[in-house]
Amino acid sequence: MKRIGILTSGGDAPGMNAAIRAVARKALSANLEVCGINYGYKGLVEGNIFEIKEKEVSDLIQLGGTMLYTARYPEFAEEQTQLKAIEQLKNNGIDALVTIGGDGTYHGAVKLTEHGYNAIGVPGTIDNDIPFTDHTIGFNTAIQTSVEEIDRIRDTAKSHSRIFVVEVMGRNSGEIALRTAVASGSQVVVIPEKPFDVDQIAETIKDARLRGHDHQIIVTAEGAIHAQDLTEQLSNRGVENIRGVSLGHVVRGGSPTAYDRVIAARMGSYAVELLLNGQGGQAVGIENQIITHHPIIDLFNTKAVTDLSMYELANTLSY
Amino acid sequence: MKRIGILTSGGDAPGMNAAIRAVARKALSANLEVCGINYGYKGLVEGNIFEIKEKEVSDLIQLGGTMLYTARYPEFAEEQTQLKAIEQLKNNGIDALVTIGGDGTYHGAVKLTEHGYNAIGVPGTIDNDIPFTDHTIGFNTAIQTSVEEIDRIRDTAKSHSRIFVVEVMGRNSGEIALRTAVASGSQVVVIPEKPFDVDQIAETIKDARLRGHDHQIIVTAEGAIHAQDLTEQLSNRGVENIRGVSLGHVVRGGSPTAYDRVIAARMGSYAVELLLNGQGGQAVGIENQIITHHPIIDLFNTKAVTDLSMYELANTLSY
Amino acid sequence: MKRIGILTSGGDAPGMNAAIRAVARKALSANLEVCGINYGYKGLVEGNIFEIKEKEVSDLIQLGGTMLYTARYPEFAEEQTQLKAIEQLKNNGIDALVTIGGDGTYHGAVKLTEHGYNAIGVPGTIDNDIPFTDHTIGFNTAIQTSVEEIDRIRDTAKSHSRIFVVEVMGRNSGEIALRTAVASGSQVVVIPEKPFDVDQIAETIKDARLRGHDHQIIVTAEGAIHAQDLTEQLSNRGVENIRGVSLGHVVRGGSPTAYDRVIAARMGSYAVELLLNGQGGQAVGIENQIITHHPIIDLFNTKAVTDLSMYELANTLSY
Amino acid sequence: MKRIGILTSGGDAPGMNAAIRAVARKALSANLEVCGINYGYKGLVEGNIFEIKEKEVSDLIQLGGTMLYTARYPEFAEEQTQLKAIEQLKNNGIDALVTIGGDGTYHGAVKLTEHGYNAIGVPGTIDNDIPFTDHTIGFNTAIQTSVEEIDRIRDTAKSHSRIFVVEVMGRNSGEIALRTAVASGSQVVVIPEKPFDVDQIAETIKDARLRGHDHQIIVTAEGAIHAQDLTEQLSNRGVENIRGVSLGHVVRGGSPTAYDRVIAARMGSYAVELLLNGQGGQAVGIENQIITHHPIIDLFNTKAVTDLSMYELANTLSY
Repeated sequence: MKRIGILTSGGDAPGMNAAIRAVARKALSANLEVCGINYGYKGLVEGNIFEIKEKEVSDLIQLGGTMLYTARYPEFAEEQTQLKAIEQLKNNGIDALVTIGGDGTYHGAVKLTEHGYNAIGVPGTIDNDIPFTDHTIGFNTAIQTSVEEIDRIRDTAKSHSRIFVVEVMGRNSGEIALRTAVASGSQVVVIPEKPFDVDQIAETIKDARLRGHDHQIIVTAEGAIHAQDLTEQLSNRGVENIRGVSLGHVVRGGSPTAYDRVIAARMGSYAVELLLNGQGGQAVGIENQIITHHPIIDLFNTKAVTDLSMYELANTLSY
Repeated sequence: MKRIGILTSGGDAPGMNAAIRAVARKALSANLEVCGINYGYKGLVEGNIFEIKEKEVSDLIQLGGTMLYTARYPEFAEEQTQLKAIEQLKNNGIDALVTIGGDGTYHGAVKLTEHGYNAIGVPGTIDNDIPFTDHTIGFNTAIQTSVEEIDRIRDTAKSHSRIFVVEVMGRNSGEIALRTAVASGSQVVVIPEKPFDVDQIAETIKDARLRGHDHQIIVTAEGAIHAQDLTEQLSNRGVENIRGVSLGHVVRGGSPTAYDRVIAARMGSYAVELLLNGQGGQAVGIENQIITHHPIIDLFNTKAVTDLSMYELANTLSY
Repeated sequence: MKRIGILTSGGDAPGMNAAIRAVARKALSANLEVCGINYGYKGLVEGNIFEIKEKEVSDLIQLGGTMLYTARYPEFAEEQTQLKAIEQLKNNGIDALVTIGGDGTYHGAVKLTEHGYNAIGVPGTIDNDIPFTDHTIGFNTAIQTSVEEIDRIRDTAKSHSRIFVVEVMGRNSGEIALRTAVASGSQVVVIPEKPFDVDQIAETIKDARLRGHDHQIIVTAEGAIHAQDLTEQLSNRGVENIRGVSLGHVVRGGSPTAYDRVIAARMGSYAVELLLNGQGGQAVGIENQIITHHPIIDLFNTKAVTDLSMYELANTLSY
Repeated sequence: MKRIGILTSGGDAPGMNAAIRAVARKALSANLEVCGINYGYKGLVEGNIFEIKEKEVSDLIQLGGTMLYTARYPEFAEEQTQLKAIEQLKNNGIDALVTIGGDGTYHGAVKLTEHGYNAIGVPGTIDNDIPFTDHTIGFNTAIQTSVEEIDRIRDTAKSHSRIFVVEVMGRNSGEIALRTAVASGSQVVVIPEKPFDVDQIAETIKDARLRGHDHQIIVTAEGAIHAQDLTEQLSNRGVENIRGVSLGHVVRGGSPTAYDRVIAARMGSYAVELLLNGQGGQAVGIENQIITHHPIIDLFNTKAVTDLSMYELANTLSY
């Protein structure tokens, strides 16, 4: 192996740059050449490829987003497109590929693997919905930012004795919502994994107000119910002085937390180690603090499981 | 004069607590007694009043929101209610009142003044729409927070080569939008004070893209056009890969900037000085760095004027 | 069991308040009464004890420091003092005690346990030097703050093509230094657990400069070598344009990260669960994501082990 | 005029990049060519000059430090060196120069002006010690960062009932110290412009402790007395539980505040306007909100005056 490629794909996540740096530096320190591929699989197929030198990943670790850009590219589901990608890789002398991203990124990496090309998957997504790792790169930052936003919202909630329903990211998963709720001391948390009863939420809020909780925060994952809808339904059930806020895109970017930078460094570096050991087709993760890998092909037979102990915890402590 | 009261009213603004502390400490240092009135004019009429001692405003200067709570209270427009307020003040031995807030707060203070009661107005609102002062308390923090949000959004914009329309606060005023636009390097800014032409904005964005500006930020004040509406209209005019985000309540709270704390300290302290000099019925401000006062009754014959030089500046530098 | 006590002791750590809240809320939700003890073991011996109601731990989760105050109290090593503490606990009807802190705090809890009194230890210290837990409360925040400081220092380093030696906390442990170094992309890290050779560090820095790394960061733990000393020694060995900075107390306080708030919530809540199950004399921890407990008496036969894989990683990626 | 140059010199200040962007964009929008000069006057003499295109100052406004690097260069005091600089400018076809920096930078610009070359000075320094402007670029950010550091230190101060002496930047000026003290609610502020009496400070601190101020902050400018020295002297006078902290370089870098970005945009843009109007040899400033210019040669007959009203204010409010 002489030269490896790196791409990021899917939604951007804080820490992707730290992962790119780790892959590049580790590879360079092992005397490999490194190529960056812009705009993910789209750029790969189009040949948007350039060489990365040591200095080009300096002063990068702290930056949000991805220096390699990213794009959605549904066309990569077609075999013909996949073969074109492999051709581009071969034409550029790239012997193996590290892909950084979420669900869709891994699908692409599996396809390349199935075609016999060595691809490694590094989990970079704020959603924490990738199996074989406890935390994805970006997840910690997204929670941290969501919690900081709620810290600010709480000032207004308290000053006006108001209830705020705050919607955080999570289409299929309550992972961000659960930790955000626990860390922001919210009264109620609503997630896709658990049925919820608006009548009961209304009772909880009203009861807590009677006990002196003049202001309260409800955290909802976008995949469970939207903030505005829940606000309206609670208002209709007699919850007074209530407002809905959706955090949306403001929590996607930003400088990655130290935590995300560290796991990005570990996983990016390990991806290259695997390739140096001749192991392709692997999904990298950190499980119970230990760096691990699993065949990437098994990934879609597995499902990331939400830690629901947080659900119980959030409810108890809001007492 | 032996005892003064303090209240905050209207929307909360970062720095209100710093102003409360300044009023209380200045008054206590002059051997006055100080009363806090909770929930603004509503609490005043209801007699929600308590004594503030020196230590109770410690560790307060850095906190967002208002320790005296706030409430909207349209009933205060009625003369009967105003007279009830004055009765409460007299019953509590409160000789003069410092009110901290925005437009509505000042209306209340004018009414008390017209009834012969000494009330001082300190401008505390993120909107910067109060005359007789260059900046209101909270304005600087609201801009700072808006700009930090856009700094994060820019990471995603850049990674995806995307246009973002970001809506900031400002129902009648482009003050926040203009400074936010200049400080975030936005391509276009839309404010209520200036007519805008969506066709032309679409051209500007498309031209800039041709010149290499793959990602761009458009800042709009809520009072001009909502982010979602502008996004849709631009999309209809062929601007691709564009999203709308409304910052909303996430920029209202939070720890006040040093700037807001300093002007809050200056204006709160000066309010007490005026009262010690026997001057009531005044609106406090800082104009051209100098602390000033004007008869509060004149305030509604005056209009805060938006500094439109920023408009030109934002457009030039986005070139 | 009808009533439990809580105290914090030793150096303050971000997240102590989140832990206090969790203990209090969990206990109240189980119909226990809760007492706060001010100033750690000192306050306990002096009877500085008060009842905590549900609302008194509201709006607390986001605050740095500890609402229960803390103090160093070497006198607690004497048996007589320990017995006085137990007398105070009995006089106040406190059936069990949750102690939050570091090394010294645990020594106190062990002593109470040895006297037959039920005490639980919750690890609250930025140093991450407590066994039976992967991370102590406050450790994540201390790293995060250190990394943010270095992000700022890097701006100056880059602008002036300068080397900065940055000293972070860690008298006996390189835990903070290692993660800070990895997360800030530092060139060299110096920790007490590893011998270091200033000549070799000088070579590394000079070599990197030749390869184009005009500005570089060296992270040192206070227990290895002070920033000023290392700066001087490197300067004597011909490293030009180099400065030393000690972060010191600026990284001890501050609002806890979401991560620290979550582990504080989990561990504080679990401490009460143990007591409800009649289990005292336990040290609470989170190991491999799972909440655990071990006899607190075993704690001093165990040693927290620094994860040295970070050392290798930092060196490789700085290539 | 066809082409202008930009350089930054002296200590880096947050907002320098925003000023560079403003100069470049304004000039490009007027169809001028723009050259960046690296490493200030040193780079100018050495011919370290490159062309700046529109896109090269994108995504720059939010970054601390200076993309044009900076260096101290005492050699520029010599006439021969100055003439070499002018030769370089002519060889590169640069018709006028915008210099961004502090005191030393202005001296250089004056020299060029005296040799008949059109140079404009834009005030970029955290020290706020340049005449003809109310605030220099970077001053607001330095205060903001200092205040955020003290907000964190206060958590520890409060938890331990401790006094902290915090040293902020300011060799000859108390400008940063005064605003930092007011904004952080410090008990005492010590500045070079005012004599101070350690005995009296000790009394103030002890008195305040008796009145219940268990923890307190003292802010000192580095030019008045160092934190460690003042701590020791106060300790010798019976002030217990007191520590010293020097903020140093951690407050020099970092993303500029919105305030600094806005004034950088205004002043950078105006510098080009002056040149377009044929006016060289000017120092740009913002005085009483209005953009102004004065002959740069007059600058050294003038002295920036510290606003001492803050001194009185800090003392009163700490009551």
